[in-house]
Amino acid sequence: MIRTETSVIVRYYETDQMGLTHHSNYIRYFEVGRSHFMNEIGYPYGLMEEEGCLSPIMSITIRYVRPSYFDEELTIRTEVRELPEDFAVFYQDIYNSKGKLVAGGTVKVAFLDAATKKRAKAPTNLILASKKHWVE
Amino acid sequence: MIRTETSVIVRYYETDQMGLTHHSNYIRYFEVGRSHFMNEIGYPYGLMEEEGCLSPIMSITIRYVRPSYFDEELTIRTEVRELPEDFAVFYQDIYNSKGKLVAGGTVKVAFLDAATKKRAKAPTNLILASKKHWVE
Amino acid sequence: MIRTETSVIVRYYETDQMGLTHHSNYIRYFEVGRSHFMNEIGYPYGLMEEEGCLSPIMSITIRYVRPSYFDEELTIRTEVRELPEDFAVFYQDIYNSKGKLVAGGTVKVAFLDAATKKRAKAPTNLILASKKHWVE
Amino acid sequence: MIRTETSVIVRYYETDQMGLTHHSNYIRYFEVGRSHFMNEIGYPYGLMEEEGCLSPIMSITIRYVRPSYFDEELTIRTEVRELPEDFAVFYQDIYNSKGKLVAGGTVKVAFLDAATKKRAKAPTNLILASKKHWVE
Repeated sequence: MIRTETSVIVRYYETDQMGLTHHSNYIRYFEVGRSHFMNEIGYPYGLMEEEGCLSPIMSITIRYVRPSYFDEELTIRTEVRELPEDFAVFYQDIYNSKGKLVAGGTVKVAFLDAATKKRAKAPTNLILASKKHWVE
Repeated sequence: MIRTETSVIVRYYETDQMGLTHHSNYIRYFEVGRSHFMNEIGYPYGLMEEEGCLSPIMSITIRYVRPSYFDEELTIRTEVRELPEDFAVFYQDIYNSKGKLVAGGTVKVAFLDAATKKRAKAPTNLILASKKHWVE
Repeated sequence: MIRTETSVIVRYYETDQMGLTHHSNYIRYFEVGRSHFMNEIGYPYGLMEEEGCLSPIMSITIRYVRPSYFDEELTIRTEVRELPEDFAVFYQDIYNSKGKLVAGGTVKVAFLDAATKKRAKAPTNLILASKKHWVE
Repeated sequence: MIRTETSVIVRYYETDQMGLTHHSNYIRYFEVGRSHFMNEIGYPYGLMEEEGCLSPIMSITIRYVRPSYFDEELTIRTEVRELPEDFAVFYQDIYNSKGKLVAGGTVKVAFLDAATKKRAKAPTNLILASKKHWVE
């Protein structure tokens, strides 16, 4: 498995009139976590796209455990537990500054050939980068 | 059950560099669908909040079936299949202008007393409004 | 000049913890207004892009006159007062349902050749479409 | 004057189908810059709100100089050049990682008594915090 962590600070515009971080933003923080994950394993999203592979989202499940607030620092933990093949599955959790779970979920991603827009296997460079950073 | 429909047109800023509607926006369109649902049954979200009830999201599942594009008109279908008690569950689907499914999912919502921030039952006015518009 | 009008309903996620529509969203409503403008004159943004012309924003000025709120219907008025040449300038105002001004401003747009990314004149089809809908 | 700097990394959902950071996001980065500014001078926005002062935006001018891209690190420079009285004016510039200007502008902010929603002077604690960090 590979686990990475990064953090965000909740922005004012990400709050809503309930006075909390709007729920849709956690989906976006998950994406921040995955971008960071890709950078950490040395195969940035941008590079994967330049090499002709797009990675549309197939499905997301997310549960919301407790609220978070403006200006709060949140930690996004991102795990991959199996080497990507037809899909990659990201297990993602968001913690507040006290280490309490705010939201958690899974994101399933497919791979597309950018030229043909047809489904593809996970790109070789993603597999290689993942293997290099794999821990049991 | 109650079913309502409303529509949105994909906005330019809702696209991303893949050239598609960014996946996080469907979560937001779901919310547009629920707001419209509440208006349709005559118990707007804003009124529910004024009456002291907040409705935080508990969980969401969403699957993405096909992409949508800038300036495309999408239909958001929102269904409630059981009267809300401790939770309300919304079944939501988004269709493109050809009637093809773009994304679908479920959104589970809880109820909070706005003053105490404690969990509460679905407000009576929501039950009444729902019963009034219920069809078998 | 050409004047068009369209409307939006303020979405829940567009509010912030002040309980108002977040100021950044009016910039986005302006864009909704310009998209609608282009559709109305029969030369949609999407078509202009397909024909090889991008239109990056050069500058925006906006003043905020009064707040707007969740679920409120806003009217976006968009005016072009001179035929576009090197730039197009859009004069845009947003009114609430009582006809009161919420925010107003100007948006200056340039034109880029999509292939070379070099600055270009306003595309001929935009000029033609504008002339067709021009009123003194 | 007081000058602070912070940085953001452009998020994927902040790009649009032109392949660039969408222009509306710089308005949001400005806000990130102002939040950070307030933290740096020791009078966070959240505290100002708790002390009963809201700070709605009165006007913004922004010019866009060059594009920025997904995953690029941007520096937000925020300056206050006069002590706030009826208004605060923030001069804000965004630079890319090569130190080139991406966008710059000014944001004029007013002060409201949160209870009465009436216009107010800049809160004393904001003046004090500003004076403490003032440099000629």
